[in-house]
Amino acid sequence: MNLSSDTSHRAAMFTRVRFVLVETSHPGNVGSVARAMKTMGFGGAPGSLMLVSPREPAVREHADAVAMASGADDVLAGAQIVDHIDAALEGAAFTVAMTARQREFGPPRLLPRMAAARSRDLLAMAGQGDGLVAFVFGNERFGLPNEVVERCSAVTHIPANPDYASLNLAQAVQLVAYEMRLALLEAMGAGGGDSVEAGKIGYAGEPATAGQIEAMFGHLQDGLAAIGFLDPDNPRKLMSRLRRLFARTGLEREEVNILRGIARRMRLAAGRTPPPGAPDAEEH
Amino acid sequence: MNLSSDTSHRAAMFTRVRFVLVETSHPGNVGSVARAMKTMGFGGAPGSLMLVSPREPAVREHADAVAMASGADDVLAGAQIVDHIDAALEGAAFTVAMTARQREFGPPRLLPRMAAARSRDLLAMAGQGDGLVAFVFGNERFGLPNEVVERCSAVTHIPANPDYASLNLAQAVQLVAYEMRLALLEAMGAGGGDSVEAGKIGYAGEPATAGQIEAMFGHLQDGLAAIGFLDPDNPRKLMSRLRRLFARTGLEREEVNILRGIARRMRLAAGRTPPPGAPDAEEH
Repeated sequence: MNLSSDTSHRAAMFTRVRFVLVETSHPGNVGSVARAMKTMGFGGAPGSLMLVSPREPAVREHADAVAMASGADDVLAGAQIVDHIDAALEGAAFTVAMTARQREFGPPRLLPRMAAARSRDLLAMAGQGDGLVAFVFGNERFGLPNEVVERCSAVTHIPANPDYASLNLAQAVQLVAYEMRLALLEAMGAGGGDSVEAGKIGYAGEPATAGQIEAMFGHLQDGLAAIGFLDPDNPRKLMSRLRRLFARTGLEREEVNILRGIARRMRLAAGRTPPPGAPDAEEH
Repeated sequence: MNLSSDTSHRAAMFTRVRFVLVETSHPGNVGSVARAMKTMGFGGAPGSLMLVSPREPAVREHADAVAMASGADDVLAGAQIVDHIDAALEGAAFTVAMTARQREFGPPRLLPRMAAARSRDLLAMAGQGDGLVAFVFGNERFGLPNEVVERCSAVTHIPANPDYASLNLAQAVQLVAYEMRLALLEAMGAGGGDSVEAGKIGYAGEPATAGQIEAMFGHLQDGLAAIGFLDPDNPRKLMSRLRRLFARTGLEREEVNILRGIARRMRLAAGRTPPPGAPDAEEH
């Protein structure tokens, strides 16, 4: 994959990195995040900054936010406000949640540098203008809710001094944005796209988006309940375990279709014996 | 260079990284720098922070500095004030000046990551307790004087957005300290601490054996045939696709059990509707 002659593709990679802030409390922090993004070259597209249910709905016009964003007011003004994480992750092929908390069945943990490298590889492989990666940050005090973390492809944290890990929200965004910038600059660097090492990940197909994956989990849950493997009244972390398993793969679109086809067949099989020899030809 | 058996040497490497601030104007910034250093594990020795001719000589006790250093007051209090750069660089084997300005005859320019790697290599090679590396930062407005830059082994800069490179002093220190921390953690290797992780995906569970995985694929194939998703006469590479998907995950034993449980339920569901609310308790 030689991108070295494709300048617009390169520039576009920066606009396909999204920063998502979930339930941020202080408008000033949103302004500081806009600034941190812009210092690293991000924020150049509407929705580069997504705010999920900020405590202050008029945060983009809030005096503290505007003051802290100084010079990055375009990023702040271009922020989009949504009321659910799904809307913020729409179109994202790789999503990384910032959380230091250890979770038993969470997505795989990557250091920011590794998460940035994988994000870069995905962006480099996706067609021009296709696909997004998203970094997701939680509330200043409470971090990210479990259900948001479980929707993500990976989790990351800043490997700070364990005895004094007092980085604030904007500082964490700054470090992640810095890693992402370096990863993208490297991809654009001397070797062009050849330095991407896309082969290491081994995607052959088009990556699935977060929306496609969420829909698939919904179908799978229904299917597993239909065949009696999942007890809706006592789910026993089954879906969390499956989310963790599939988060490690980097699901492709085609694979999501296969899993949805299987889920559909589970439901059919549970209701009635399916017609013999009738595979879902359109599904795989 | 195997340091894995030398814990004190490891810890000592952090104390042998010095941050030098030259002619800083605002005491608050000195406090913020102390904080940035401590978040990355630096500042643990007297003189870890060296102040060359700060505009406010009583900066260590200044209210702004103390306020901004909150929690890192030990680093601030341990700062040493000197009136010449030579005193600040005393004992340093490798010195890196932060300056974005291009100079015709300056020291070689390295990206922070490279400067950190070289610093790390020097510290690792030096005897225990011997030698220092120093990162040197100039005044908030005027940067570093030429005569200071020329005294250093290398120059570096944060490769920020050229159109909006408005990182302040503490943010620049934060990023350099972060690079230095990662370089040192890397040198300490796998045994060097929980936080390194080498960027790898962390398995939480026991990996499945090849035999367990093969048996699982057999069950899965039967289950998929039973629910009519897989046509044994026309399998259409379905199992190959699933093998590829699961090969990427590095399946755990527990996950293989879950998948086998699902396959078993598929067969049951296809033969007869399973008893409602009866999950396979032993399977997951």
